[in-house]
Amino acid sequence: MCKRYLFTVEYDGTAYCGWQKQNNGLSVQEVVERAIFKICGEEASIVGSGRTDAGVHAYAQVFHTDLSTNIPYRKLPFALNTALPDDIKIKNCRVVNKDFNARFSAKEKTYIYKMYISVHASALRARTHLHVLPGVDAELMKRGAEYILGRHDFKCFLAANSQVKDTVREVYSINFTKRGDELTMRITGNGFLYNMVRIIVGTLLDVGYGKIAPERVKTIIESGERKFAGKTVAPQGLYLYKIKYKKR
Amino acid sequence: MCKRYLFTVEYDGTAYCGWQKQNNGLSVQEVVERAIFKICGEEASIVGSGRTDAGVHAYAQVFHTDLSTNIPYRKLPFALNTALPDDIKIKNCRVVNKDFNARFSAKEKTYIYKMYISVHASALRARTHLHVLPGVDAELMKRGAEYILGRHDFKCFLAANSQVKDTVREVYSINFTKRGDELTMRITGNGFLYNMVRIIVGTLLDVGYGKIAPERVKTIIESGERKFAGKTVAPQGLYLYKIKYKKR
Repeated sequence: MCKRYLFTVEYDGTAYCGWQKQNNGLSVQEVVERAIFKICGEEASIVGSGRTDAGVHAYAQVFHTDLSTNIPYRKLPFALNTALPDDIKIKNCRVVNKDFNARFSAKEKTYIYKMYISVHASALRARTHLHVLPGVDAELMKRGAEYILGRHDFKCFLAANSQVKDTVREVYSINFTKRGDELTMRITGNGFLYNMVRIIVGTLLDVGYGKIAPERVKTIIESGERKFAGKTVAPQGLYLYKIKYKKR
Repeated sequence: MCKRYLFTVEYDGTAYCGWQKQNNGLSVQEVVERAIFKICGEEASIVGSGRTDAGVHAYAQVFHTDLSTNIPYRKLPFALNTALPDDIKIKNCRVVNKDFNARFSAKEKTYIYKMYISVHASALRARTHLHVLPGVDAELMKRGAEYILGRHDFKCFLAANSQVKDTVREVYSINFTKRGDELTMRITGNGFLYNMVRIIVGTLLDVGYGKIAPERVKTIIESGERKFAGKTVAPQGLYLYKIKYKKR
């Protein structure tokens, strides 16, 4: 009997063109679908909570798919992991109602962005963090972040080439954690536009370096102009951290 | 004028056949020597504190080399880093006396070995940690580690194919740190045999899983037989962490 399964998957995005299947590169989605075919013999089409870009990582991307397999859901992660590469691993699986949708039932998403502040680049963090030069003030970044909280039209933080029409989103929280030379931003909202988190980090780094005042973030949002915001920082510091779903 | 320079270098060893130059693979040493040639125009031969194996990482490998360059020593890391790949970066440089030798002046070495304890493998830690299954008792590992402390003939922890004659070393400390699902071993000694740290971790995991009693570590050391010790665990969890030198 065909059932709907919800999977949580962790991946190191370095080697992939992103989550979503594409013609011009290997995606995480494609690798997972191949593993499902190998283990279950079914040509499943999986639906992720949303896309992640090339080089972006996930602690817990979520997807659903319908399968007729006889493998018990508790065994599926073990079985699929034998067919997955080291940089993509299933962490969890459960059975959900047929009206559950990994994309449309998502209520809240959390991303984290990892940086380290250092004169020299760190070889061991090249794939996992953004290298930031000393002189950045995390307190200023926090003050700038306050203007992002709440419900706004975030058109200014949308990649210039995007066709999205509805650019209103709500950001619930932004926190910064500093440990040693590492600075991590954690951001939660009801959803994020294409490149939005990376442009927010780029803009807040402009604030942190004193290039623009924290209050300027308010003006940038009000302008709705991508050109006033900071640059899109590198993908390797970004991690899809958590998806919260409506009560089922 | 030719001066002797001491460099500290960080590297992600995943892509390399180890520190030492070899005919059948790309080594960290070779990549660093090429960068020196590119920046300084000198065919330098660099001397590391010791070898690290294929896939083993370093937070702070140390090497010395003699150069006639006019580039001030404080600028050398910046200059060399422009010619080095993302996974090898110079962290520090200073001028030392001609009698300083990165290998023979080393007094103390510290390695760390990173593990995580989890039912499923972690995609984001595939290159950086050893995956250990639940059921391992870190307290037992600590008790087993106590028998390793001090000056012993560590022949039992030497790779079977090694030709080394003097197998006596002194281990000053072994500490375990647990944070979340991660378990890290830190070991300091006057030097380590080929594969010694990885065989120690393999042996202590046998203790941690209850396969052998902690006291058995003493017997294994006394036996001097490689076959009684645990297996050589994977290289990706191992990091050369610190080298301490004699006062100069």
